[in-house]
Amino acid sequence: MPTPLDLAQTLIACPSVTPATGSVFDALEGMLTPLGFTVTRTVDGEAPDDADGGGPVENLLAIRAGPEGSRHFAFAGHLDVVPPGEGWHTDAFAPEIRGDLLYGRGAVDMKGSIASMVAAVAAIPADAGTISFLITGDEEGPARHGTVALMQHMAEAGVAPDLILVGEPTSVNRLGDMMKIGRRGSVNIFLGVDGTQGHVAYPHLADNPAPKLVAMLAELDALVLDEGTDWFQHSNLEITEMAIGNPAHNVIPAKAEARISIRFNDLHSGASLSKKVTEIAERHGGWARPIISGEPFLTEPGAFSNMLADAIRAETGIEPELSTSGGTSDARFLKNIAPVIEFGLCNATMHKRDEAVAVADLDTLARIYERVARAALAG
Amino acid sequence: MPTPLDLAQTLIACPSVTPATGSVFDALEGMLTPLGFTVTRTVDGEAPDDADGGGPVENLLAIRAGPEGSRHFAFAGHLDVVPPGEGWHTDAFAPEIRGDLLYGRGAVDMKGSIASMVAAVAAIPADAGTISFLITGDEEGPARHGTVALMQHMAEAGVAPDLILVGEPTSVNRLGDMMKIGRRGSVNIFLGVDGTQGHVAYPHLADNPAPKLVAMLAELDALVLDEGTDWFQHSNLEITEMAIGNPAHNVIPAKAEARISIRFNDLHSGASLSKKVTEIAERHGGWARPIISGEPFLTEPGAFSNMLADAIRAETGIEPELSTSGGTSDARFLKNIAPVIEFGLCNATMHKRDEAVAVADLDTLARIYERVARAALAG
Ligand SMILES: [Zn+2]
Ligand SMILES: [Zn+2]
Repeated sequence: MPTPLDLAQTLIACPSVTPATGSVFDALEGMLTPLGFTVTRTVDGEAPDDADGGGPVENLLAIRAGPEGSRHFAFAGHLDVVPPGEGWHTDAFAPEIRGDLLYGRGAVDMKGSIASMVAAVAAIPADAGTISFLITGDEEGPARHGTVALMQHMAEAGVAPDLILVGEPTSVNRLGDMMKIGRRGSVNIFLGVDGTQGHVAYPHLADNPAPKLVAMLAELDALVLDEGTDWFQHSNLEITEMAIGNPAHNVIPAKAEARISIRFNDLHSGASLSKKVTEIAERHGGWARPIISGEPFLTEPGAFSNMLADAIRAETGIEPELSTSGGTSDARFLKNIAPVIEFGLCNATMHKRDEAVAVADLDTLARIYERVARAALAG
Repeated sequence: MPTPLDLAQTLIACPSVTPATGSVFDALEGMLTPLGFTVTRTVDGEAPDDADGGGPVENLLAIRAGPEGSRHFAFAGHLDVVPPGEGWHTDAFAPEIRGDLLYGRGAVDMKGSIASMVAAVAAIPADAGTISFLITGDEEGPARHGTVALMQHMAEAGVAPDLILVGEPTSVNRLGDMMKIGRRGSVNIFLGVDGTQGHVAYPHLADNPAPKLVAMLAELDALVLDEGTDWFQHSNLEITEMAIGNPAHNVIPAKAEARISIRFNDLHSGASLSKKVTEIAERHGGWARPIISGEPFLTEPGAFSNMLADAIRAETGIEPELSTSGGTSDARFLKNIAPVIEFGLCNATMHKRDEAVAVADLDTLARIYERVARAALAG
């Protein structure tokens, strides 16, 4: 039986800068098939049906069906990785063990987690229940044809997990110190005011859009969206761009633009915030064009988080923090089909050079995943 | 005796896009020498002593001394012109008469005026008093080595006019309807706030400079600098630029910058406004870098404006408006050595394609200039 370390090294050795293709999926399929999984691989978004691309993307759905009426527990994750960048001490795609650490791009985000998932299910008998792997090749990229396409295939096949565990690296200082029971949503909104160009000496012949944009931004910046909730920090708005682009000192500009970014909790939706900001923009004589990149999700603390916390406590002695901090993940999509929680390795080196995982953590994580899967299947 | 029309055509036929050099000065010298003027031509700003250039610039000082103890009346102006731009129906530097109009770059701004000045002094006997021409080749450009250098040469030579008439095209609809007894000052101020870059998901680790800049701009835009004076409209502040330059939607920027332009009356100075704006900028955690391009000037209505108004009324029947509107001119420098008023041709086509002057206006303007010069010399 290969160890999580063996499995992780195999996955890391397959370069898979987003979008992941080919060999890394072959490797995972080669691990799951002997364990009794039926593996379905698809290439999604291949047709040029999407003006701004985002495809093609490889996805993998693996299912090992339990007895009739079994509960269904799903592991979800991604095989693509961010580019290695500069300054590595080793080849980012040549896994290397030095001291207690395994180095390589994807060690924690999240080939190491997937290796631990595989090791976990290897230890669970097939009659314990239905287990599936929902693995995409595009989580780090546009993510338009990744988990979303997988969910479409699952719906068509009538595959519906009861609970989903996403293996993102949620631990901070020690494996087990944090799980994510939710994530904030994210919306970027382009703002602008159109005016009438003119000469600064004759302002009555012009209509300067800048003061209107300034007043709009001042009102937006002063917004208190909420005070936070039991599980979320308060929603936050940041001005990320202001642009007129007027080289002439004596010219009143014809337009003034800006951009804001809002990270928001489950008291809002992308649509509700877009509406609120658009109303403010229009009241100041301007316009707003929102781009919603993710809705918030929250899996209220309860049976699922308790199972996971019990597993973590049993293996590490640590009481995990239930957090909703940080950026977005594919859990924003998966929340639509089942309660979802994220838990995985320590994230200190994710997306950085010399990404590394403690070898011992891979084993511990495999045992935590095994415990929570068994508990989830037991119901 | 050449007519103002002849003289204007001669000057227009010498291309002199700012800075003016060579032939156009030769032409003017050739007109003034026969009238008894001593012409001194200088090239100023030739040495690369100025980091951002602005030189070399040709200037011309012509003096015809009257009897000992005479009063001294000066005509001031510029031989450089703005570039012709596109779309002319004729060659901008091939003067052409069509109907009642003379076409050519500089027809009204201000080779036509200079032609009328020459014709005016040709009709005034030398014993009427001292007359001078203060003519620069750089009024439309940086103007760092133009009238300022001429004034330096005059100071060194002990040349001190009692009154100065600048021939800028101040008339609006009909020759004589407006003179400028003052001009507003102008200052452009670069503004900025420095912050700390970060990720929008972790705002507590960053310091977004944009809200501070927005608050600064809101306060500046709300400033009421004054309510205007008897002779000036109110001072006005325009936001002319806002710039962050942040392509990343999820990044809190490290700095935010802007630029304002203030046109101000004689209740302020460039320094007083720079101080006020700097205080506001610093109170909002930012900085301000002012560039003063001109101080305001005002020649209070009185003897000089009355002489000019009398001359205008006598030749045209029009009662001229005494205005301080519009942009800056070299009067902002000349006001330091004598009372200065601007009066010249109709400005409808200045700086535009197909710049043109009514032929009849050249003659009328010559007679107005003659009248006011005679009156000024009579004291
Ligand atoms: Zn990840
Ligand atoms: Zn001019």
